[in-house]
Amino acid sequence: MRRAVCPGSFDPATNGHLDIVDRASRLFDEVIIGVLINQSKTGLFTIEERIDMLREATAAHGNVRVESFRGLLVDFCRAQDAAVVVKGLRAVSDFDYELQMAQMNIGLSGVETLFMPTNPLYSFLSSSLVKEVAKWGGDVSQYVPDLVRERLVTRLRQN
Amino acid sequence: MRRAVCPGSFDPATNGHLDIVDRASRLFDEVIIGVLINQSKTGLFTIEERIDMLREATAAHGNVRVESFRGLLVDFCRAQDAAVVVKGLRAVSDFDYELQMAQMNIGLSGVETLFMPTNPLYSFLSSSLVKEVAKWGGDVSQYVPDLVRERLVTRLRQN
Amino acid sequence: MRRAVCPGSFDPATNGHLDIVDRASRLFDEVIIGVLINQSKTGLFTIEERIDMLREATAAHGNVRVESFRGLLVDFCRAQDAAVVVKGLRAVSDFDYELQMAQMNIGLSGVETLFMPTNPLYSFLSSSLVKEVAKWGGDVSQYVPDLVRERLVTRLRQN
Amino acid sequence: MRRAVCPGSFDPATNGHLDIVDRASRLFDEVIIGVLINQSKTGLFTIEERIDMLREATAAHGNVRVESFRGLLVDFCRAQDAAVVVKGLRAVSDFDYELQMAQMNIGLSGVETLFMPTNPLYSFLSSSLVKEVAKWGGDVSQYVPDLVRERLVTRLRQN
Amino acid sequence: MRRAVCPGSFDPATNGHLDIVDRASRLFDEVIIGVLINQSKTGLFTIEERIDMLREATAAHGNVRVESFRGLLVDFCRAQDAAVVVKGLRAVSDFDYELQMAQMNIGLSGVETLFMPTNPLYSFLSSSLVKEVAKWGGDVSQYVPDLVRERLVTRLRQN
Amino acid sequence: MRRAVCPGSFDPATNGHLDIVDRASRLFDEVIIGVLINQSKTGLFTIEERIDMLREATAAHGNVRVESFRGLLVDFCRAQDAAVVVKGLRAVSDFDYELQMAQMNIGLSGVETLFMPTNPLYSFLSSSLVKEVAKWGGDVSQYVPDLVRERLVTRLRQN
Repeated sequence: MRRAVCPGSFDPATNGHLDIVDRASRLFDEVIIGVLINQSKTGLFTIEERIDMLREATAAHGNVRVESFRGLLVDFCRAQDAAVVVKGLRAVSDFDYELQMAQMNIGLSGVETLFMPTNPLYSFLSSSLVKEVAKWGGDVSQYVPDLVRERLVTRLRQN
Repeated sequence: MRRAVCPGSFDPATNGHLDIVDRASRLFDEVIIGVLINQSKTGLFTIEERIDMLREATAAHGNVRVESFRGLLVDFCRAQDAAVVVKGLRAVSDFDYELQMAQMNIGLSGVETLFMPTNPLYSFLSSSLVKEVAKWGGDVSQYVPDLVRERLVTRLRQN
Repeated sequence: MRRAVCPGSFDPATNGHLDIVDRASRLFDEVIIGVLINQSKTGLFTIEERIDMLREATAAHGNVRVESFRGLLVDFCRAQDAAVVVKGLRAVSDFDYELQMAQMNIGLSGVETLFMPTNPLYSFLSSSLVKEVAKWGGDVSQYVPDLVRERLVTRLRQN
Repeated sequence: MRRAVCPGSFDPATNGHLDIVDRASRLFDEVIIGVLINQSKTGLFTIEERIDMLREATAAHGNVRVESFRGLLVDFCRAQDAAVVVKGLRAVSDFDYELQMAQMNIGLSGVETLFMPTNPLYSFLSSSLVKEVAKWGGDVSQYVPDLVRERLVTRLRQN
Repeated sequence: MRRAVCPGSFDPATNGHLDIVDRASRLFDEVIIGVLINQSKTGLFTIEERIDMLREATAAHGNVRVESFRGLLVDFCRAQDAAVVVKGLRAVSDFDYELQMAQMNIGLSGVETLFMPTNPLYSFLSSSLVKEVAKWGGDVSQYVPDLVRERLVTRLRQN
Repeated sequence: MRRAVCPGSFDPATNGHLDIVDRASRLFDEVIIGVLINQSKTGLFTIEERIDMLREATAAHGNVRVESFRGLLVDFCRAQDAAVVVKGLRAVSDFDYELQMAQMNIGLSGVETLFMPTNPLYSFLSSSLVKEVAKWGGDVSQYVPDLVRERLVTRLRQN
């Protein structure tokens, strides 16, 4: 069985993230979305909320699972018996950092990273840009699924 | 009337910023310098001080106005009835982020962003680099107007 | 009157080119498409054919004109009384070369270049890629206007 | 069965190419090396010679096949029933062009492209650099397999 | 006497840093490693510890000295009578920022910066990546000298 | 004695090239300008003319020599007993290719390459851009020394 991990913070998941997961799920037998628990950074949503949204947004895929992890990505991959990480690449500035991480991960463990070009429609999307727009009342309905947009609006109203 | 917005933090304005404003003011009927109010980041100068310096430095231009704004740049543009944002582009690492913002802004509102190549003489300038140099007593007289240099020296002596 | 020049080879025009022209025509009073006559390079279409296709494709715009030129872009701009060149920017590898040209053009003449981000939908388009795909029978109907596609198919069948 | 295509000119194959094929062969059930027949460009080696060298160099892999193709990569992928292309990424300047091709290929056919970071040891390798070095008598034994080096030396002595 | 300065934070030194120092020491008569004292950022190791590790790791080089400095790099270079800074370049994203700094430094003082390509084996290394890996128990023995690895493990166990 | 080689085609030398040579001549005991003889590419000027112009333009430097070479740069460096190549770096697109060459050269021979940031004033200059501008009667007096400009005008009038 060929398993791939799609890692990230997903605070919250955007249409760009979901597009990568959707396309990866057609190329591998199973895709595991790995939500990174980063203790030094508080997110807008809790890890549980992010997992809930991802599960709901990917429910139609029979071969997508959502898990959280702390620590090194390569350790998570080995624990999940996944030989490969799949990441979206939007732009050149992503590229350098991601390439560094990928080289380090191969060196540490043999876990490979494959980069998938982001859908051009979502090439400018990021969770932080979406949060900034939503915070000031901008319309993000083209950038996140409805279930994310609703929680985003509710949460930002609370803050 | 064709209005362009030149947005930024301008903490403080450098010769690089002023070169872009000067050149943009010849291509559009009116240029509005938009000073972003960012509540999560304290600057060296207050918004009022930044506006003062910009007004003084651009006083010779009949078609340049200085305003502050909070929130989304596209909302400021619409409030000012400006169809276009003009930004200087120094280097490739600027490019990716700025392109993301520009694509998002078109998607949200139809407001266009035009990028103007920075004068090579100022291609390495940034407000933070100027502050760092001035903080350690370096001579910044080639990088900022005199009126900025004086306030910079005074302010850093107070800190 | 604020005139902008959109220069290129347009062999043939793609939806990416036309998107830039369309958006520029809303920001300036007049847009002149300048088709470069490059004597050292034979195109798939003659200069006249390229001009015809561009005129047909932009006929709905009241403020777009199509002209050809040989020699330096800055001389063409001055002859047309245009103070600014507008170019689409797709990617970082475009950026360096275009920036060099832009700096040279300002140095030679004061003619400015403004870069407009390409519509993400067309960020991967180029005339040569379209010709390559059409040559092998691929469907290019999403990438060029119908009037271009028809001529492209006819021409490639002749070759 | 999950099949991947590794396309290229392979004139000749370098250790960089073979490293990508080797790593891809562990992530997919079958890897097909697709040697592009480019009629407008004469290589140092014929297509048959390139295929021979690739077959010999990958003989130890049970799940690697070598084929040639002309025309569009996506048509070759469909003929081979492969849903994915795997390419090595060495550097940022590769990235832009490869990303354009990848986006075009998805648009045309749904065939995905996954990018695999080149082994840092081979990040500066290219077939043309290897040929240039060998042409002037430089030692390329660290950059190509022995079977390629021998043919390269013989061929260049003939020219 | 031709002196070069290799500046950095070295928190801690990696094999990538030491490779640059080693190669620079063959091209210049003396190399001075300049450890930047950055009061606004607490490191994992104190300045003294970083200097100790660097001295131990470069003890075999007769022409390498280790010093700390605060303030502008160009002032440190002048105090050390060094006409040139030598820096490793890993990737494009380094390049833009480093180029800005280099241009500013020439403008301020005439001190030149020369960039040396990082050994590909270490092109993905950074002090922060090494600390992150070590923090989670990953094996960093290929990335830092033994004397650094030991202190790293001890320090992280204390935290 | 610390010798550096500045290699190139110099068809013709620009102020950008001469700026690099001038600055390198202050950092090394001797600078050798190496004019590459490329048999597969006819230049505007012969190798002898290029050498003549370079010698005239650098006559004031006591420690600059001009030589031509064919074959591998690293062989030329060894023949000249030079341990280092110095190259100007204008932009990111230069960077990738130059980095590849530099890595290959270290691997082949141990000859190091040091990159020097181009003077921002000349960051957009290239020999081919200068020839293109001169060909159409543009004024290149800010971009090349007078002695080059005169020969350029004479030569282009002949063609």
